[in-house]
Amino acid sequence: MTHDSSPAPIPRPGGRSSRIRDAVLAATLAEVADRGYTELSIGAIAERSGVHKTTIYRRWGSLEALLGAALESLTATPIAPADTGALESDLGSYASDIAQMLTGETGRVLRAVIGSDARRLDAVDGVRRELFASRRPLSEQIFVRAQRRGDIPHDTDATAAVDFLVAPLYFRLLLSEEPIDEAFARQAARATAAAARAGAFARRHDGSAPCATR
Amino acid sequence: MTHDSSPAPIPRPGGRSSRIRDAVLAATLAEVADRGYTELSIGAIAERSGVHKTTIYRRWGSLEALLGAALESLTATPIAPADTGALESDLGSYASDIAQMLTGETGRVLRAVIGSDARRLDAVDGVRRELFASRRPLSEQIFVRAQRRGDIPHDTDATAAVDFLVAPLYFRLLLSEEPIDEAFARQAARATAAAARAGAFARRHDGSAPCATR
Repeated sequence: MTHDSSPAPIPRPGGRSSRIRDAVLAATLAEVADRGYTELSIGAIAERSGVHKTTIYRRWGSLEALLGAALESLTATPIAPADTGALESDLGSYASDIAQMLTGETGRVLRAVIGSDARRLDAVDGVRRELFASRRPLSEQIFVRAQRRGDIPHDTDATAAVDFLVAPLYFRLLLSEEPIDEAFARQAARATAAAARAGAFARRHDGSAPCATR
Repeated sequence: MTHDSSPAPIPRPGGRSSRIRDAVLAATLAEVADRGYTELSIGAIAERSGVHKTTIYRRWGSLEALLGAALESLTATPIAPADTGALESDLGSYASDIAQMLTGETGRVLRAVIGSDARRLDAVDGVRRELFASRRPLSEQIFVRAQRRGDIPHDTDATAAVDFLVAPLYFRLLLSEEPIDEAFARQAARATAAAARAGAFARRHDGSAPCATR
C-alpha cells in the first residue's frame, strides 16, 4: 500500500511516484474487471490502491483518463510471435499466447470494457485503435516469414489472415462465452494455416474467384 | 403511429394489440441503436412509438423485459443457409447474409447491446443463449451436407467450423470496426472451406497433431 500522506522522497524513476502509479493503475483494472464500468469510481480505486483521491485526480484528471492509462499499461507489453520455423506452429504459439491472455485478467478487463458503455469513451477507443495499429505489424511477421519460405502465396493479405486466427478467440470471449483453451487455440492455428496455404487470403481474389494454390 | 387513447376494437391477431406491440418493439430497437443502452428509457420509447408509458409498463413490466422482447423480435426470423450444392458457395451465401444483417439495423443494435452494460441483463443474456442454441443447428447443416458429399472429413466439428466462418465478421463489428462487406464475407467462406477440406476441424485432432486430409 502506498499512501499519499507519507513523506515524499526525491522523485526518481521506479521510486515512490512510480509505485503510486502502479498501485492506482492496478486497482483501476481490478475494479473494472470485478465490478464493470458502470460501478467504477475514483473513490473505489482510491480505497483499493490506498492512494488518496486528491492524488489520483491531480495526476490523471478524470476517471476516463485514468481508465485509458490503465488500459495502456495492461497492453503495454506486446505478445511477440515466436519464430518456430513453420507456419502452423508459429500460429499455434501465438494463438496460445493470446488465449492465455484472454483467460487471465486481461480478458476479464477487456470483456468488462468492450462489453460496456466504456467502449464509447475517447480514451478507451484511442487505446483500442493504437493496439490495432501497433500489434498487427508484429503478428503479421508470421506470414511474412511463411511467404519467404514459399509456404503460402506471395500476395497473402497478412492482416486478414491474423484477424482470422484471433477472431474465434475473441468470439468466445465476447459472444459465445465458451472456454478459450489450448486445444481451441491450436484448432484456430490449424484452420488459419490450412486456409493460408490454400491461398484463401491471397489478394488476387475478387470475392468470387475459386481457391488458388501456388 | 398507434395511440393508446384511440378507441379499442375487438382484439384479434394482427389487430390493434399487435400493432402496438410492433410499434413499441421497433421503437425500443431504434432507441437502443441510436442512443445506446445507458440512455434507454421507457419514456423515450413511449414518445417514439406513440404508445402511452402506462400501456408499455402494463404489457412488459420493465425496461429489461421490454429490451429482451425487442431483441427476440429482431432475431425471430433465422437466416436459413441456402443449399447451393457446394461447400464454399454455401458458406459464401451464408456469410454474405450475416454480413448484410450486421451492416444493417441488427448490427447497430447488437453493437449497442453487446458493447454496453445491457449484456449483463438476464433477459439479454437469455436471448443470446437462445440464439446460439437455435441457430447453430441450422448453419451446421452446411457441413452436414458437405460431409455427405464427401467434400470434408466425416468427423468435422460443424460447430467449430461455423464459428470460424462468422467470428471474423463479429470481430469487425465489435473490435476492429472495419467494413463488413461482400468481399470480406467471401474471404471468410473461402478460408473456412479450405480449412474444412484440409481437415482442420476434424475431431480426431488433439491440439497438436498435424493437418490431415481424407
